Amino acid sequence: MADILETEMPLDRARREFRSDLLDAGLLLGTSVPGVYGRSAVFEAILTGLDRVLTEMASPLQATALRFPPVYPRADFERTDYIASFPDLSGVVSSFERGDREHRELLAAREQGEAWDGWLDPSDVVLTNAICHPLYATLEGRLPEGGGVFDIFGYGFRHEPSLDPMRMQSFRMHEFVYVGDPDGAQLYRDTWLDRAVETLVSLGLAVETVAANDPFFGRAGKMLISSQLRENLKIELVVPIYGDLADATAIASANCQRDHLTAAFGIRTSDGNVAHASCLAFGMERTTLALLRTHGLDVETWPLDVRARLGL
Amino acid sequence: MADILETEMPLDRARREFRSDLLDAGLLLGTSVPGVYGRSAVFEAILTGLDRVLTEMASPLQATALRFPPVYPRADFERTDYIASFPDLSGVVSSFERGDREHRELLAAREQGEAWDGWLDPSDVVLTNAICHPLYATLEGRLPEGGGVFDIFGYGFRHEPSLDPMRMQSFRMHEFVYVGDPDGAQLYRDTWLDRAVETLVSLGLAVETVAANDPFFGRAGKMLISSQLRENLKIELVVPIYGDLADATAIASANCQRDHLTAAFGIRTSDGNVAHASCLAFGMERTTLALLRTHGLDVETWPLDVRARLGL
Repeated sequence: MADILETEMPLDRARREFRSDLLDAGLLLGTSVPGVYGRSAVFEAILTGLDRVLTEMASPLQATALRFPPVYPRADFERTDYIASFPDLSGVVSSFERGDREHRELLAAREQGEAWDGWLDPSDVVLTNAICHPLYATLEGRLPEGGGVFDIFGYGFRHEPSLDPMRMQSFRMHEFVYVGDPDGAQLYRDTWLDRAVETLVSLGLAVETVAANDPFFGRAGKMLISSQLRENLKIELVVPIYGDLADATAIASANCQRDHLTAAFGIRTSDGNVAHASCLAFGMERTTLALLRTHGLDVETWPLDVRARLGL
Repeated sequence: MADILETEMPLDRARREFRSDLLDAGLLLGTSVPGVYGRSAVFEAILTGLDRVLTEMASPLQATALRFPPVYPRADFERTDYIASFPDLSGVVSSFERGDREHRELLAAREQGEAWDGWLDPSDVVLTNAICHPLYATLEGRLPEGGGVFDIFGYGFRHEPSLDPMRMQSFRMHEFVYVGDPDGAQLYRDTWLDRAVETLVSLGLAVETVAANDPFFGRAGKMLISSQLRENLKIELVVPIYGDLADATAIASANCQRDHLTAAFGIRTSDGNVAHASCLAFGMERTTLALLRTHGLDVETWPLDVRARLGL
C-alpha cells in the first residue's frame, strides 16, 4: 500500500482526496463500486436549486417537458448505433426468463461460487445512456412547422468505473433539445451555448468553452473523433476542478447532432426533409460537484448571492 | 385481430383501454416495450405534488433523506438474495469490456442480424429493484441508540412486461424505512400504515388495506408466500382501479422485513443484537395513476381541495 501511494500520480491523488473529502463530509455515500454513490439531503438541495436555475434560464424556450426512466427499449438503442460507437460505456439488461428447473440449476451454480449469468437472457431494455435518446422514437414522422424544443431530465448511465467523483456511472442530466431544420439547429446551439455560460458564470463557476469530442471506441473511432473536432460539432463547458494537474472537466455541453439520430429515427421537418437536432446538456452531479469544489464543502460558507439563487 | 378482440377478457380490455386513454391524453408516452413510458409535464406535476404531500406527512419522523441511483453494486444484490426469490423480476447489467478485435466480431455478428450479447461481460452493477436495497450496505455495523429512520426516493425496476399501466417496469418509489429494535420496527409499521391510509384517503382515493405477499418465484416460493401471509408481514394499500373486474391494485405497502436484510448486511442495534427493519413504501407512478383513475384524466376538473393539496 505504501508503495502504491508513493508512486501515485498527483492527479490521481487529487481525485482520491476530493472523493474522500466528499465522503467524509457525508455529501456522497460510497459503495463498493467506483462511480456509484448515494446522495445526501444537502447534495440534493444543491442539485435541486441548480435545476430550478437552469429551468428558469430555459423558460423563454417554452420547451415541452418530458421525463424518461433510466431504461429504454433495446430496439431504440439499436437504432442509435451506440453499441458501434461506445460499446464500453453501454449497459445492457438481462433477466431470468426460464423455469423452475433452470432456476434450481442457477442457484446450485451460485451455491458453488460459480457464475450464474449463463441462465439469464437478454431483456427488451437497456440502460439509457443519454437521457435524450428515448425522445427520438417519440418524434418519428413529420414535425410541426418550426420544429420542437424539448426539456428532458433523467438518469444517464456510462459504464466507466472511476475513482474521480466527477466521473459517475449513474448520473442525472438535464437536456434542452431542439429538433427542426439545419439552420435552426445551428442557431439554437450557438445562442443557448452563450446563455448557458452566462448562467453558470453567474453561479461563480470559472467556466470556459472548448471544442470537444465524444469518446468514440477503438481505432475506427479515431476518425469520428477528428471529424467531430474539425467540424466543431461538440462544445464543452469546462471548469478547472483539479487546477493545473489536468485539463478542466466538462460539466455541460452544447452539441450539433446534425441528422445523426433524426435520420435513424425517420424524423422529418414539416417540408419533408430530414430534421437536424442540437442540444444543450447539463451534467447535474458534475455541476453540483463543481459548485462544491468552487465554493467549498460547507454550504453555510458559500457566497450569499449564490445561496440565494440556489434557494439554500 | 378481430378474433383476438372478440376473445379478449373484460379485465384485459379494461387495462388496455386505461392505457390507451392515458396515451391519447398525452399523460404517458408509449414505447415499443410494455411497461416503459415517457411522462408528460402534467403527469410529473401530479407526481411531484403527491411527493410533497407524502414528505409533509412524514415530517414528524425527522428522517435522514438519502437518494440512490437506479443501479447499485452487484455484490450488494447478492447479499439481498433477490436472485433466489425474484429471479424473473431482476435486471442484471452487462457491458463490453474487450478489445478492438472482439468489437469488430460483435459488429460483424450484428450486421448479420445475429445476437451480439455473447461479446458482453457482466458488469459490477444491477438495476435497483427496491430503492431501499442500497441503504442496507451503508448501515453495516452498529446503529446509534434508537435506531434510524430514512427517507429514500428513486427508481425501482421490475422485469414484468405488462400492458396494464399500473404495472411499469421502471418506476419511482418513495420509502420511509425504520431500522432498529424488533418492537420499534413493528410499532413503526403499524403506526405509519394508519397515517399513510389517512393521507391517501384525504386525496380522494378509496384505499383499503389487505394482507399481501411478495411475488416469490416458483414452487419453492409458495412456502415463503404462505409464511409471509400467515405472519401478516406485508400489508398493501389498494385501490379498485378496474372495479369488479379484478382485485384492487396496490399503490403502497407497509412491511415488516424483520431481520431479513439487516442480518444479511450485518446491521446491529446499539445493544449488539441483529436489527429489524420495517418500511412504508409508496409507488409514485401507481399512486399518480390511481389519482387520474379516480378524479379523471383532465386535472382541471379535479376537486378543488385535491388540486390545492397537490399544488395543481
